[in-house]
Amino acid sequence: MNIITPTIKHLLDTWLDEDLGRGDLTQAGINSNEVVNAHWECKQEGIFCGGGLVKCLFSQLDPSVTILLHKADGESFMHGERVIELNGPVSSLLAGERTALNLAMHLSGIATTTNKLVSELKGTGVLLADTRKTTPGLRQLEKYAVRCGGGINHRLGLDDAAMLKENHIAWSNGIEKSIKSLRKNIPWTSKIIVEAETEQQAKEAVLAGADGVLLDEMSVTNIQKLVPQLRALAKQASRQVVIEASGINPKEIKNYASTGIDIISSSAPITKSTWIDFSMRFSEKGESK
Amino acid sequence: MNIITPTIKHLLDTWLDEDLGRGDLTQAGINSNEVVNAHWECKQEGIFCGGGLVKCLFSQLDPSVTILLHKADGESFMHGERVIELNGPVSSLLAGERTALNLAMHLSGIATTTNKLVSELKGTGVLLADTRKTTPGLRQLEKYAVRCGGGINHRLGLDDAAMLKENHIAWSNGIEKSIKSLRKNIPWTSKIIVEAETEQQAKEAVLAGADGVLLDEMSVTNIQKLVPQLRALAKQASRQVVIEASGINPKEIKNYASTGIDIISSSAPITKSTWIDFSMRFSEKGESK
Amino acid sequence: MNIITPTIKHLLDTWLDEDLGRGDLTQAGINSNEVVNAHWECKQEGIFCGGGLVKCLFSQLDPSVTILLHKADGESFMHGERVIELNGPVSSLLAGERTALNLAMHLSGIATTTNKLVSELKGTGVLLADTRKTTPGLRQLEKYAVRCGGGINHRLGLDDAAMLKENHIAWSNGIEKSIKSLRKNIPWTSKIIVEAETEQQAKEAVLAGADGVLLDEMSVTNIQKLVPQLRALAKQASRQVVIEASGINPKEIKNYASTGIDIISSSAPITKSTWIDFSMRFSEKGESK
Amino acid sequence: MNIITPTIKHLLDTWLDEDLGRGDLTQAGINSNEVVNAHWECKQEGIFCGGGLVKCLFSQLDPSVTILLHKADGESFMHGERVIELNGPVSSLLAGERTALNLAMHLSGIATTTNKLVSELKGTGVLLADTRKTTPGLRQLEKYAVRCGGGINHRLGLDDAAMLKENHIAWSNGIEKSIKSLRKNIPWTSKIIVEAETEQQAKEAVLAGADGVLLDEMSVTNIQKLVPQLRALAKQASRQVVIEASGINPKEIKNYASTGIDIISSSAPITKSTWIDFSMRFSEKGESK
Amino acid sequence: MNIITPTIKHLLDTWLDEDLGRGDLTQAGINSNEVVNAHWECKQEGIFCGGGLVKCLFSQLDPSVTILLHKADGESFMHGERVIELNGPVSSLLAGERTALNLAMHLSGIATTTNKLVSELKGTGVLLADTRKTTPGLRQLEKYAVRCGGGINHRLGLDDAAMLKENHIAWSNGIEKSIKSLRKNIPWTSKIIVEAETEQQAKEAVLAGADGVLLDEMSVTNIQKLVPQLRALAKQASRQVVIEASGINPKEIKNYASTGIDIISSSAPITKSTWIDFSMRFSEKGESK
Amino acid sequence: MNIITPTIKHLLDTWLDEDLGRGDLTQAGINSNEVVNAHWECKQEGIFCGGGLVKCLFSQLDPSVTILLHKADGESFMHGERVIELNGPVSSLLAGERTALNLAMHLSGIATTTNKLVSELKGTGVLLADTRKTTPGLRQLEKYAVRCGGGINHRLGLDDAAMLKENHIAWSNGIEKSIKSLRKNIPWTSKIIVEAETEQQAKEAVLAGADGVLLDEMSVTNIQKLVPQLRALAKQASRQVVIEASGINPKEIKNYASTGIDIISSSAPITKSTWIDFSMRFSEKGESK
Repeated sequence: MNIITPTIKHLLDTWLDEDLGRGDLTQAGINSNEVVNAHWECKQEGIFCGGGLVKCLFSQLDPSVTILLHKADGESFMHGERVIELNGPVSSLLAGERTALNLAMHLSGIATTTNKLVSELKGTGVLLADTRKTTPGLRQLEKYAVRCGGGINHRLGLDDAAMLKENHIAWSNGIEKSIKSLRKNIPWTSKIIVEAETEQQAKEAVLAGADGVLLDEMSVTNIQKLVPQLRALAKQASRQVVIEASGINPKEIKNYASTGIDIISSSAPITKSTWIDFSMRFSEKGESK
Repeated sequence: MNIITPTIKHLLDTWLDEDLGRGDLTQAGINSNEVVNAHWECKQEGIFCGGGLVKCLFSQLDPSVTILLHKADGESFMHGERVIELNGPVSSLLAGERTALNLAMHLSGIATTTNKLVSELKGTGVLLADTRKTTPGLRQLEKYAVRCGGGINHRLGLDDAAMLKENHIAWSNGIEKSIKSLRKNIPWTSKIIVEAETEQQAKEAVLAGADGVLLDEMSVTNIQKLVPQLRALAKQASRQVVIEASGINPKEIKNYASTGIDIISSSAPITKSTWIDFSMRFSEKGESK
Repeated sequence: MNIITPTIKHLLDTWLDEDLGRGDLTQAGINSNEVVNAHWECKQEGIFCGGGLVKCLFSQLDPSVTILLHKADGESFMHGERVIELNGPVSSLLAGERTALNLAMHLSGIATTTNKLVSELKGTGVLLADTRKTTPGLRQLEKYAVRCGGGINHRLGLDDAAMLKENHIAWSNGIEKSIKSLRKNIPWTSKIIVEAETEQQAKEAVLAGADGVLLDEMSVTNIQKLVPQLRALAKQASRQVVIEASGINPKEIKNYASTGIDIISSSAPITKSTWIDFSMRFSEKGESK
Repeated sequence: MNIITPTIKHLLDTWLDEDLGRGDLTQAGINSNEVVNAHWECKQEGIFCGGGLVKCLFSQLDPSVTILLHKADGESFMHGERVIELNGPVSSLLAGERTALNLAMHLSGIATTTNKLVSELKGTGVLLADTRKTTPGLRQLEKYAVRCGGGINHRLGLDDAAMLKENHIAWSNGIEKSIKSLRKNIPWTSKIIVEAETEQQAKEAVLAGADGVLLDEMSVTNIQKLVPQLRALAKQASRQVVIEASGINPKEIKNYASTGIDIISSSAPITKSTWIDFSMRFSEKGESK
Repeated sequence: MNIITPTIKHLLDTWLDEDLGRGDLTQAGINSNEVVNAHWECKQEGIFCGGGLVKCLFSQLDPSVTILLHKADGESFMHGERVIELNGPVSSLLAGERTALNLAMHLSGIATTTNKLVSELKGTGVLLADTRKTTPGLRQLEKYAVRCGGGINHRLGLDDAAMLKENHIAWSNGIEKSIKSLRKNIPWTSKIIVEAETEQQAKEAVLAGADGVLLDEMSVTNIQKLVPQLRALAKQASRQVVIEASGINPKEIKNYASTGIDIISSSAPITKSTWIDFSMRFSEKGESK
Repeated sequence: MNIITPTIKHLLDTWLDEDLGRGDLTQAGINSNEVVNAHWECKQEGIFCGGGLVKCLFSQLDPSVTILLHKADGESFMHGERVIELNGPVSSLLAGERTALNLAMHLSGIATTTNKLVSELKGTGVLLADTRKTTPGLRQLEKYAVRCGGGINHRLGLDDAAMLKENHIAWSNGIEKSIKSLRKNIPWTSKIIVEAETEQQAKEAVLAGADGVLLDEMSVTNIQKLVPQLRALAKQASRQVVIEASGINPKEIKNYASTGIDIISSSAPITKSTWIDFSMRFSEKGESK
C-alpha cells in the first residue's frame, strides 16, 4: 500500500529540518562532495518498516542519492543483515542519516513488537488491533507499522468512527439514545462502537444496534460467558456485532483469544515498543556520477 | 524553563488536528455542553513531564478550559496520585483528552527512564547525556523530558556543535586538518567534538584542540587507562577537554562512572523508554461558568 | 456540534489573507477607527449556515469586534430578516465583510438546497446523503452545511470507509476477493460499501458481506424488485445491509424513496446549489468601547 | 497565461490531502500497481477550464502519471467529447480522480456560465466583469475561470485597487476628500473606483478624478441619461472614466449594454454557476512503462 | 493604517522562532520570572517605524507583556529619546528583544532614508515612490516603512499593475499591441505603465493609452523637453498620464523635480538604507502583576 | 558548503509568491513562450553571494530554466562582469527576475561589506564575527553571506550558545552562579560567553570558567592591559578563553586588532551594508529545447 501523500512528504521535510537546523556544521570538516556507498546493518532481528519513507526522504533531501531496498516493509530481517544500500554524496548521506535511521528504527520497533503479539494469536482467528495511543505527529505511520507487523488498525482518529467510552456514557442520556442520535448525525458510512465495562452495558449496546462492542478489563471467564449471549442477541436482530477485548494482560492473551471474541486491541505495540537498532556503515568509495 | 515557542504552539495545533481530523463524531451522542471536572490519575509511579504543554494545548483548543497542575515537570508522582485537574465543557475535554495524554505519557516515560539511569550515577559526579536518536518531530520535547529526568542534553541538532564521527573521519583528511577547517568555518561559539574508536584517535583529537572527546564502545579498563593520559595532554596545552563515554552496557554504568570521565551518553532514555500510564477520569459535574 | 478545529481556524486566516492581500487600500479613504453597528440582511429565504464560522473569523481578524447571532446554523430565515448583528471598528468590519459573507452565502446556499430535497423525503424514512463531490478546500464545511440542511454525510474522504466503485471492481479480482482483502487490511471500524451497476453485483456484494450497497443509475422498477432480494440475502446471513440509490433524477426522488431503500445520495446539494444573498448594512454609529 | 505559482502548487497538495486523509483505504481491494489508460468524458457541453491544474495535480501526486489535454482552457467541448487522457498506475489515478474532477467541474461550470453572459454582450463592445464574491480559498482560480469564459476581472482583492462603496462613503468625509486622501496614500499605480447609488454621487466621483464609476442598481433609463453627462464631465477635465453598471437583472443585460457604459459586472458567473459533469472512465489496460 | 493581517502575525511568529530555535539557553542563568520595566533608547535621530509590529510580536510571544508606544509610526525622534516602554517577565523581554529590535531598526532605517529624499522634494509637488527592489520576505513592511517616511508606493507586486519594461518590449509585438492585449486580459481596475528608454517609446506609450510612463535614465534636459509633449499628446486624447522618472542620480533630484514630472521613483530608500540604532535598557524592577 | 535545506526551499517559494501574488499581469502583453538567453551584469565590483540560491529558486519556479554560474559564492567580480547566464521561457525568466536579483544583490552587499572589514584585519590573525542583528527571516542566509565575505559567525540563535549580557547579569545572582547554573542546564556541547562591560566582570567570567569573554565598548588601551591578565587567569586554571571585542569604531579596527584579542564582532556587515547592483539583460533569442 502506497502511504506517501503530500502530508507525509511535508512531514519528511519537517523532520529533516529538525535535525539540520541552520545547516550541518560538521560538513566543513570533511570532503563532502565524494560520492560513496553505504548500507544499513541490523544489530538485532525483527520486522522491517520504513523503507519507502527513507527512499522518499533522501530523494527530497538530494535527488542524486539512490537507494536500494533489500527488504520490503513487513519483511523480517536477521541480525547482521543489510536492509538498505545507499549511494550518493557523503554530505547528503550524513545530513539525512540520523533522521532516516530514527524513523526506521522507531517504526521497525513497532512492527516487531506487534509481530510478537500477533504470533501468539496465530491459528486462533483473533486479530490484534492498535488504539489511538500513538506518538503525537506519527499516528498515520505508527498505525502503518502495526499493519506491517501483522496487526489491524482500530479507529484512525475521532472522525472515522464513533465510540462511546466510559466518559461518554456518563454524560449521555443512555447508550440507546446515544446510538440513535449518532446514527442521525454521523456519516452513515461510519461504524458505532461501544466500550462496555459491564455485561449490562454490552447487552444494551448490542440491542441498540452498535456495530462493535469493546469489552474493557473483563476477566476471561466473564467474556467467555458473555460472548455467546451477545452473538445471540445480535442474531435475533439479524445483525452482526464485532466483539473486541481490551485492557488485558499480555500474558493472558491466548486465553482471551479462546473466548470467541473477534479482536484484541492493545496499545502495547506502540506504547511498550522500543527501537530496533540499525547502523549506517560506509562500504567503500562509490563511483562519481 | 519556558519551552513554549511559536513552533511548539503550532505543533500542538497539528497534533490536535491529527486526532480530530474532520471533527469528533462521538460528540453527537453526548450532552456536549455540560461543564465538568476531571483529573488525571497515575497508574504507576514515575517522573512527570508535559504539564505546561497540556495546559497550552487545552487553551488553544478551548480557552474556557482551566487546568490545575499538581506536579511541576520533573517532580515525581506515586501510583494513584492525581497530577492534573481539568474543568471545562465535556466536549472539549474529550476532544483534547487523547492527544494530551499521549504527549504527557510519552514524555513522562522518557523522564522516568532517564531518572533511573541518573540515579545510578548519583554521587559519582558523572552526568548522563542524551543523543540525537529522538522520535522524528519530537526532538525538542524529548530532550526537554531528558532534562526533567535529571539528564543533560548533547547536541540539539547538526547545527549547534560539530562532531566528527567514524564516518566523518573516514572521509576527511585526518582529525587534525578537520578540526582546523572546522574552527575556520563554524561559529566560534560552537564546540567541536570527536568520536574516537581508538586510543590513537582520542589523543589526536585532544592534541588538535577538540573541546570534547567521545570514547565509543571502549572497555572500562581501556577508558580508565586512557582518561589520565588525555587529561595530561590537555593540561600541557592549557586546555580543558570534556570526556564522554558512549555505547556502554547499562549494567556496567557504575563501573564506567568510576573511570574519571565527565559524561556518559546514551540513547536509552528515549529509544528504550515505554509510556507511563495516566488515565483521565471525570470526577463530578463542574459548575457552569 | 462544534466544528471549529485548529485546521478550520487556520483556513479562516488563509481566507482573510486571500482578500486582504498586502492590505485594504480603501481604508485610507475613510474614518477607519469609528466604532459602528452593522447587520446582515437576508435578500431571500433559506436555511442559515456559517454563523459560528463568521464569529470565529472576526475574532481572529480583530478581537474587539462583537457578533450576535440571531439564527443558529440550521435554522430557517425569511426574506428581510437580520441574521447577524456586528459591532466594531468600521475598518475591521469592512476588512472581514466580503470573506465572511462569501463563506456564509455559499454554505447557506448548500443548506437551503439540501433542505429542499430533504423536504421531499419527509415521512418516507429515507435519508438524503451527500457525496465526495465537494469544492476543493471546503469538504468539511460543505458537508457540515449538508447536515445543517437536514441531510446526512456519506464518506468524508478516502480514508474513513472503503468503497468499491465501477473502476475498482474492473481492476480487482472480483467483489468477493476484494472485500476479503479489505477486511484484512483496513481498520475494522471502517465500513465497506459496494457501488453496484447490476443486480448481479449487488447480490454478490451482500453475499460477500458488504456493509452497504449503492445502486447506481437503476430504474425505480428494478430497485423495487431488488431491495427485498437483498434484504433476504442479508437476513439469511444474519446481517444488516444499508441500501442506497444514487444517480437518480431529482424529479423522481419520491418514487425512489418508496422502493424500500434506506438512503438516496446526491451531489446536487453541493454541485447544483447557488449562493443565498445576504447584504451587510451599517445601522448607525456604535458606541466607542 | 501560466497560472501555476508556488501558492497554487501548495493548494493542489492541500486538496489532495483533503480527500486522501490518512490514505485511500480502497486501494487494499484492488490490483493497485496495474498501469492503465483512462479519459474524462463530458456529460454536457460547455467551456473547459482546469486542464493545466489537473496536469500539475497528478504530477505532484505521482510523477509517473502522464496526461494529454485535448482541450486548452477556454475551449468549448461537446456532450460526449473526451477532454483528457490519463495513463498511470490505477491506484494513483483513483487517488487523484475525485479531487481533479471536482476542481475542473467547478471551474468549467464558472467558465461556461460566464460564457453564456458574454455571448449576450457580443457585438456591443461592453465587457463582462466578475466581483469579489468568490468561494473562500478559490479567488485566483475562479477569476481565472471567468477569463477562460471570456469575461474580464474586477479587483483581485482589497489591495490592488481602492473602491469606495456605500459603506465607505457613509464613514468618510465625502467622496472628494476620500479620493484626495487615497491618492496620497495608496500606490500611484492603483486605480480608484467609486460605487455610486445616485446621479449626484456619480458626478461627484468623476469631478473628484475617480478612475472608474460603478453605477449600482440604477435603471436603464437613468443610466442612458447619466452616461453622456459623466463622459462630458471627464472630457472637460481631460480625463477618461470607466463606467460600469452592476446589480442588474440578467434578463435586461442587452438593454444595459446599449446605454454607453463600458462594463457590466456581475457575481452570477460564480455565485449562480453549477458544476459541469465530467466522468472518468478506464479505457483499457495501459502498457507498463 | 492597520497593517496587521493574519499573514503578518504568522511572519512575526516565524521571526521569533528564527532567533529562539529550540529555546533560549541563557534563560537558565537568570531569575527569569522577575517582572521588570525596560525601554528602547534611540542612539541617533530619525523617523520611527515598527511600533505596532513590536506590540503585536510581544503579545504573541507572551500576552502578559505590556507595551507603551511613545512614538507613532512615521513620527520623528531625537537622539536619546525613549520610543517604547515595556513591562513583563524578564525572560520574555529578553526572548523577544533581538527580533523586535531588528525589525524596528531595519524599518526605521528605511523610513529615515526615505524621509531625507522626500525632504528634498518638499514644495515641488513631486512625489517619491519606491520600487520592487525589496528584501525577500519583507515587501509589505518595507513598503509600509516608505509610506511612514513620506514616500508613496509603486506596484506592490507583479499582480497589481502591468508594467512593460525594456525586457518586455523586446519580446512583444510592439508597445501598442501589448497595451491592447493587456487591456483585454488584466483586471480593468489595474493600470498599465510603460518604462521608456527613448522619447519615441514614451510617445508611443501615451498614444497607445498607457496610464503612466516611466522615463528611465534620461537627462534633465531631455525630460524637460519631453514632458510637455507627452502632456499635449495625452490631452489630445482627453487622457491623463502620470509621468515618472527613474534611474536618476540622487544629487540631481531637485533638478529632476523641476521638469514637470509627477513622480520620482528610487530603490535607494530600501537598497541604500542602513539600520537606525535602538538599544533596550532595563530601567528598574517592575511591579509584579 | 551546501546551504539548501527544506526550510530554505520553502522560503524561496514564499519569496516568489511575494512578488507573483495572484500572477504576473504583464505576461499577457508579451510572447511569453519564447525561449531566450539572459545574463546578469555587475554594475560595480564586489564579492558574489547567492548563486546556488538563484539556481534553486528558478528550478522551483520552472524546471526548464537552466542556469550557469560564472562565479562561486565568495568569489570577487569586477564592474561589467557577467556572473550568471540564464536560459528559459521569457515568462519564467521575468517572473523570477526581481526576486532572484533582490536576494543576490542583498547578500552580495553583505559579503562585500564583510570583505572590506576582513581585509583590514589581514595578517593580524584576528577574525571578524557577525552578531544576531540580522534582517528578520534572513538570519541563516545573511550569516552565510558573512562567511562568503571571509567573516566567521557568532551565535546562530538563542539556542546554540549561552551568552550573559548586561541585561542578563542584572537579573542574575552574579556571573559565577549564572555560569554554574548554565553548565547544569544547557547542552554540554554549548559554549558559555560573557559580555563584560568592566575589567572586573571580565575577570570574574574567566575565573568562573566562561568559554569566551566579549569586551564591550572598551578602549584600545584598556583591552591591551586586560587581555594578558585574562590569558593568565585562564592558564592558571588550565583553560582556554576566547577574547572578543565589540562595540568598536570601525576606523580603529586595526588598533583593536593589535591588542591580543582573538575576534572582533560587528553588526556592520549586515546593518550597514547596502545592495550590490546587478542587472538582468536579455542577450539574444535562445534556442527552443
